[in-house]
Parts: sequence; C-alpha cells; structure tokens
Amino acid sequence: MANIGIVIPAAGQGKRMGAGYNKQFLMLMEKPILAHTVRLFEESDFVSEIVIVGAEGDISVIKELVYYQEFHKVAAVCIGGVLRQDSVRAGVRALSPTIQRIVVHDGARPLLTLQAFHKFLEESREYSAAIMGVPIKDTVKRVDIAGKVLDTLPRDYLRAVQTPQIFDREILEEAHQQAASAGYYGTDDASLLEWMGHPVQMVEGMQENIKVTTPEDLLLAERILTQRR
Amino acid sequence: MANIGIVIPAAGQGKRMGAGYNKQFLMLMEKPILAHTVRLFEESDFVSEIVIVGAEGDISVIKELVYYQEFHKVAAVCIGGVLRQDSVRAGVRALSPTIQRIVVHDGARPLLTLQAFHKFLEESREYSAAIMGVPIKDTVKRVDIAGKVLDTLPRDYLRAVQTPQIFDREILEEAHQQAASAGYYGTDDASLLEWMGHPVQMVEGMQENIKVTTPEDLLLAERILTQRR
Repeated sequence: MANIGIVIPAAGQGKRMGAGYNKQFLMLMEKPILAHTVRLFEESDFVSEIVIVGAEGDISVIKELVYYQEFHKVAAVCIGGVLRQDSVRAGVRALSPTIQRIVVHDGARPLLTLQAFHKFLEESREYSAAIMGVPIKDTVKRVDIAGKVLDTLPRDYLRAVQTPQIFDREILEEAHQQAASAGYYGTDDASLLEWMGHPVQMVEGMQENIKVTTPEDLLLAERILTQRR
Repeated sequence: MANIGIVIPAAGQGKRMGAGYNKQFLMLMEKPILAHTVRLFEESDFVSEIVIVGAEGDISVIKELVYYQEFHKVAAVCIGGVLRQDSVRAGVRALSPTIQRIVVHDGARPLLTLQAFHKFLEESREYSAAIMGVPIKDTVKRVDIAGKVLDTLPRDYLRAVQTPQIFDREILEEAHQQAASAGYYGTDDASLLEWMGHPVQMVEGMQENIKVTTPEDLLLAERILTQRR
C-alpha cells in the first residue's frame, strides 16, 4: 500500500470566503489551512510523494510554506489550470513515473485525520478507483429551472462526496485525457471515470472532513481542532 | 398574508446529540433551542396561532417553556405520534378552523430570521405549497447498496430542503389523510404532496437556517447568534 502519490489542488480563489486571496492560506490555529492538509500526508508512511497545484500568483507563497513547514515529501509545486480538473491533471503529470497509485485531496480539507486516511486506504485497496463520501442528513429534492419540485431523492442512496479520492494512475490519466479531448467537465475526478464508464467505489468518510469555503466553516474547523487537542 | 398558523414538530429524541433528552431543550445562548424557534413566530405579525407538538413525556416541559417565555400565540401543545408526519398531522388538527394557511417549521431550526421568514411568505404567496431550500455545495452521487457509484447528480438542480414549508390547509390535510391511509411515509411534508401529484414550489432559503442535531451544529449555532448580536 506504500508508494502512494498525493495531488493537492489548491488553486481556489476563495471568493466565497470574502477574503481577497486564496482561502487555503487563511489561518487556522496559527497555520495556513493548506499547511494542515499537507502535514497529514507528510506524516503518513504510505505516502512517498506530494504535489501541490496552485494558482500562478500563489506559487512562491506555497513554496515558502513548504520550506518553512519542512515538508520533505513535496516533490513539486506546479501551476494549475482554469478548471479544477486541469489542475489535477497538471499535478498528476508532475508525479514521478514510479508512482502507480494516486490520491487526490482538496487543499481546503484540513480536517482529515491520519486514522481516517489509513482506513480509507485499507478499504479502497481492492478498487482501481474509490472515493470518500458521507451520508446526507438533509432531505434532497430535484427542481426544474423554475424552481418547481420534481422529486425527493431516496436519501439512503445519496452520498456527499469528499476527497480523498484514490485511483490507479493509468486509469486516472486516461480519464483526464479523454475528458480534456471531449471538453467534458466534472466537479470531481471520479465523475470523469463515471463518464468514461469505469466503476468507482464509495467508501464511508467522516462528517468532520469538511471543505473550508465560508467563514462559518473556518469557525467550525477551529472548534473541531480545539476539541481534538 | 396574515392569519397564518404555525405547526412546530418538536418530538425528536436527540439521539444524535448524545443527550439523554430531547435536543430541542438543549441550551443555546441561555435559552432552550425550541424557545428561539417559537420566539420568531411569536414576533411575526403575519402569524396568529402556533401549535407545538411534543413527545408525551415532554408536554409539561414545553408548557412551562411557553409560560415562562410568555408566548401568547401558542394555542396548543399537543402530543405527537411515532413518525414526524403523525406529529404534524396532530398539530394541524389542533389549529383553529379559521386558519387556512399553515406553516410547518422544525423545532430544531432556531436560526431562521424574521426577515428570511417574511421573504419566504412573500415569495410563496402565489403557491398552494412552497418550501424553503438551499443549493448543495457538495458533489452528490448516487450509490447502490454495495456502495458502487451509480452517477453524479447535476448540482444546479438539487436543493437541500429546510423548513419553513407553507401549505393551503385543505391540501396539507388531504395529503396527510391520503398518506396515512396508504401507509406512505415521507421525510418532509412536501413529499406527501409530491407523492399525491400536487405541485410544490422551491423558494431560496438561507444557509444559516440549519437543523441543530449534533454538538457541532450547536457550536455553530452559538457562533452565528453571537455574530448577529
């Protein structure tokens, strides 16, 4: 299970946060959000290499962060594309050829724990593509463009998708290649494989593994980390 | 738009909260959660009557709360059923016959604001059934019973459903009657109307209008109320 490569897309612009800069540099317990995220993989024995993908203007800041936090596994900090999937694709390209199993994890999900990550690796072992997700507490309905309710979706079979998402390198590269050629855009990497017809397995995640995209999320993240200490 | 009756189902058992008692009595800024919820409707000029539906063992506690908080619009505190929809049905039955427009609102949603509620009333005016919902930030996928991903749902047309939900009394009563006869169970009131084939309109809600069901929700609710002050 060792020798896993990590791709961290961190090119978000933080518009929803109301900050004038990338939300992943906002401070959470005296460290940038991104530093928490990278630290987890730095500490995992199963991870051999990490690539961080940032917006062009953020590259030097990310490199500084890697230097000061002493992240020795970060093999590259590379420039992302316009879409998230362009960024992931660039990150995959930057991983050493020896890496055959790749985990994609959002830079803005700093609350994943080592225990949950290793459980995910264990449970996803037999699958060429697996993703973390959690049950949805809300009732979810589909609406049409005018807001008329179409139906209520059976909750037991819905999952809110998170990262990490893990893939055999070959399949992930093929999915990105085909999606790029066809101009297909998905909101996560797994959706590219689904689009291609490749099976994807859902693995139970943790509710606390939130994406920090609003000031409320940041407050919640602080409380969760405080309680963990 | 005046003369609206409110039904507040408040019979939840708080199992998820880890409290040994109904989560709606947990303290939020020195008042039970349920007191915040009821206060909003007490203060709305459009509301003439409120019915609270509680578990049998909670009735006296709820009556005390109504007394000490001086909620003059609370016309009845009645005993709920096993299922949420049984509770709502009991509440509807307890409203005065002059009430022809009914709002159902979860007792565990204390963060709705008067402004958002009145906006909802305004926007739902022309519909015999309308509900509040918010866009879903997460990517949502459907899985089969083995956890295999079936598909990714187009996010633009998904809404996480909240309360308030507003209905013409006649239609709500008919839906509950038919659902009870058929043994149909829905996770919200609107789903009973959908099941009956009656149109339901979605109205844009507020992300802060969360249902407080976990300790993390309670912390978040505290932070939101603190910021509002």
